[in-house]
Amino acid sequence: MHVARTVAEFRAPRAALGGTLGLVPTMGFLHEGHRSLMRRARAECDAVAVSIFVNPTQFGPNDDFDRYPRDEPRDLAICEAEGVALVLMPPVDEVYPEGATTTVSVGPLSTVLEGAARPGHFDGVTTVVSKLFAIVQPQRAYFGQKDAQQLVVIKRMTRDLLLPVEVIGCPTVREPDGLALSSRNVYLSPEERAQALALSRGLRRAEAAWGDGVHDAEALRALVCAEIEAQPLARIDYVSLADQGSLEECRGAIARDALLSLAVRFGGTRLIDNVLLPV
Amino acid sequence: MHVARTVAEFRAPRAALGGTLGLVPTMGFLHEGHRSLMRRARAECDAVAVSIFVNPTQFGPNDDFDRYPRDEPRDLAICEAEGVALVLMPPVDEVYPEGATTTVSVGPLSTVLEGAARPGHFDGVTTVVSKLFAIVQPQRAYFGQKDAQQLVVIKRMTRDLLLPVEVIGCPTVREPDGLALSSRNVYLSPEERAQALALSRGLRRAEAAWGDGVHDAEALRALVCAEIEAQPLARIDYVSLADQGSLEECRGAIARDALLSLAVRFGGTRLIDNVLLPV
Repeated sequence: MHVARTVAEFRAPRAALGGTLGLVPTMGFLHEGHRSLMRRARAECDAVAVSIFVNPTQFGPNDDFDRYPRDEPRDLAICEAEGVALVLMPPVDEVYPEGATTTVSVGPLSTVLEGAARPGHFDGVTTVVSKLFAIVQPQRAYFGQKDAQQLVVIKRMTRDLLLPVEVIGCPTVREPDGLALSSRNVYLSPEERAQALALSRGLRRAEAAWGDGVHDAEALRALVCAEIEAQPLARIDYVSLADQGSLEECRGAIARDALLSLAVRFGGTRLIDNVLLPV
Repeated sequence: MHVARTVAEFRAPRAALGGTLGLVPTMGFLHEGHRSLMRRARAECDAVAVSIFVNPTQFGPNDDFDRYPRDEPRDLAICEAEGVALVLMPPVDEVYPEGATTTVSVGPLSTVLEGAARPGHFDGVTTVVSKLFAIVQPQRAYFGQKDAQQLVVIKRMTRDLLLPVEVIGCPTVREPDGLALSSRNVYLSPEERAQALALSRGLRRAEAAWGDGVHDAEALRALVCAEIEAQPLARIDYVSLADQGSLEECRGAIARDALLSLAVRFGGTRLIDNVLLPV
């Protein structure tokens, strides 16, 4: 496994690779969710690259950039164990050279849901992902369905800019009790952790109702909200039922593939989760 | 020479090319300026690709998109004569697929000078050039110094997004009497054409003064303005003396490489020209 700490260190071993390369972009502090992306990439590509970069531009002034968890030795051991060929850990001033002013934005898609709660977040994501694609030159890139809007936004960017990369969404990995894996779960107190199970439970109930023929947007949202509002420590940011492609909120009877997603705060920790509801 | 009228038609012959590929992006109606770019690309690269695409997003509502001159058979004959390997002439709806919302913007650099006169113009330029780079995957790309700000903007975008493309600026090609070549010159009446010589004449005088040690920004600008204001049909949009990298206007004694550029209208035709003033 080659660990590149600069873009220049990455380019030579990258150029030496034949066949297809799959990229798993991460912010480090890797967990089973990331490992599932690496395994999928290994199964589908000749070689796998993992980028580890805590991207400052996707954090807002009140976000947790400074305290975002980091564990480089453990991350590298995980990459090694998963058969990763190349790890890219670029310094911030290479990804954002002095005086850099260029942004990539998908427009309206980036200002709803997570984007409404975190202004500028998705412009930061699309900008950094376009740079990672430019450095790594992968044929495929793997993202977790856990960050559902991020996946929609990156697919849109990749399609719109005609980037020769196939963007692949992979199922959310969960704890046995249903909690979606997230690097931010370490922030939760035991009590918050227990109450956070309401997120996946609410989504599962809505999914079951959907399967039973409940296709009314308001009813499905209410089902999820009720589950979460029963938790005294939970504060709902949003519970959204939206079109999977445009992210426009659904009203009344749902006629197209939908995304049921939510963001909930427990103290200073913000958790997100979602399920897809295909028509 | 392979002429690709879709992105798909381009990708196969592109993939079959070995060695380095130089891209000359154009809006067609090719003239000697474009030919000089092709020759430079041929001299420096194993193969040359030319894109011909009149990009709607870089024209404003009052710009000349609809009447922008086009001559496809002549353009293709010129490419053939210049030894071009691949011509890309994509349809608008492939470059801007239905529902495309993604833009690439270099920010402040794109809102001064030409960008002030043509809001959105450079976002259109950077967005389309990033797409052309994604399709063509060139090692080098050639742009005329004639569009000086465009060159600065594209260099910035390419650097900021870490695109693996070397952006090369090539000298402005002029008529024997000094008029910078432009596809828009065909719009000029004989009288306007004669008066338009004041642009290059003013720039040459300022360049000579610069060589003689006149390094005061206001004095140099005044020299150019006087030359142009003597022409009754000319209306100055701007005469700018700015830092070559940041495009910030110079004041007083010039200490860094400068760009002396101007835009002048003759009736409905807008001409631009410039010279570099290296310290």
